[in-house]
Amino acid sequence: MKFESKIFMSGKEMEIEDLGQGVKRQLLGYNDEILMAKVWFEEGSEGYVHSHVHSQSSYVESGKFDVNIAGEIKTLVAGDAFYIPPHVSHGAVCKKAGVLIDVFSPIREDFLRGDKK
Amino acid sequence: MKFESKIFMSGKEMEIEDLGQGVKRQLLGYNDEILMAKVWFEEGSEGYVHSHVHSQSSYVESGKFDVNIAGEIKTLVAGDAFYIPPHVSHGAVCKKAGVLIDVFSPIREDFLRGDKK
Repeated sequence: MKFESKIFMSGKEMEIEDLGQGVKRQLLGYNDEILMAKVWFEEGSEGYVHSHVHSQSSYVESGKFDVNIAGEIKTLVAGDAFYIPPHVSHGAVCKKAGVLIDVFSPIREDFLRGDKK
Repeated sequence: MKFESKIFMSGKEMEIEDLGQGVKRQLLGYNDEILMAKVWFEEGSEGYVHSHVHSQSSYVESGKFDVNIAGEIKTLVAGDAFYIPPHVSHGAVCKKAGVLIDVFSPIREDFLRGDKK
């Protein structure tokens, strides 16, 4: 593996990156094949519509989100989930402050570089 | 892709599989490259030590777990995370009822078949 996270990770000790505009991100476990991230959204903040080569699977831990995938919008709450195939456009508007657990395959090298988008 | 989950998933509507011995599992988003699952553990239940070819990244949503990875045991609570490289032995004992969000790459075809282990 070219990239590997630590084996055990303390949520309280790991860095939380402020991406601006009400969004914060903490990288969890990763290697070349997979990357998990915890993302906090303030009410009204937004993950702008974009697409990428990675497969993405996400879980709503808390809050309320209008999730747009390929132009279809659904309101998701705690316990709901969504899947984004490679190259499919997607975005989310946070309607009530909350947390998403996002996972990508393969790794998001841009996240490791600290890119803000 | 050979396998793909639905795009939007309602936690309340999706099947929860009883794996026995205090463990239940709900499949979330997946395709050939990735599979996300939500796993409920009752206090005292156990994910027995095992290993697999898949990379695994996990997030502790709630509860308390003694997580064993390659023989090293750490107690993890809500907000903590762990990463398991391919082929590395791992297991967990639930010390306080809770939920793990587990992600694997590539897909766990055994989970789709409904295997109980």
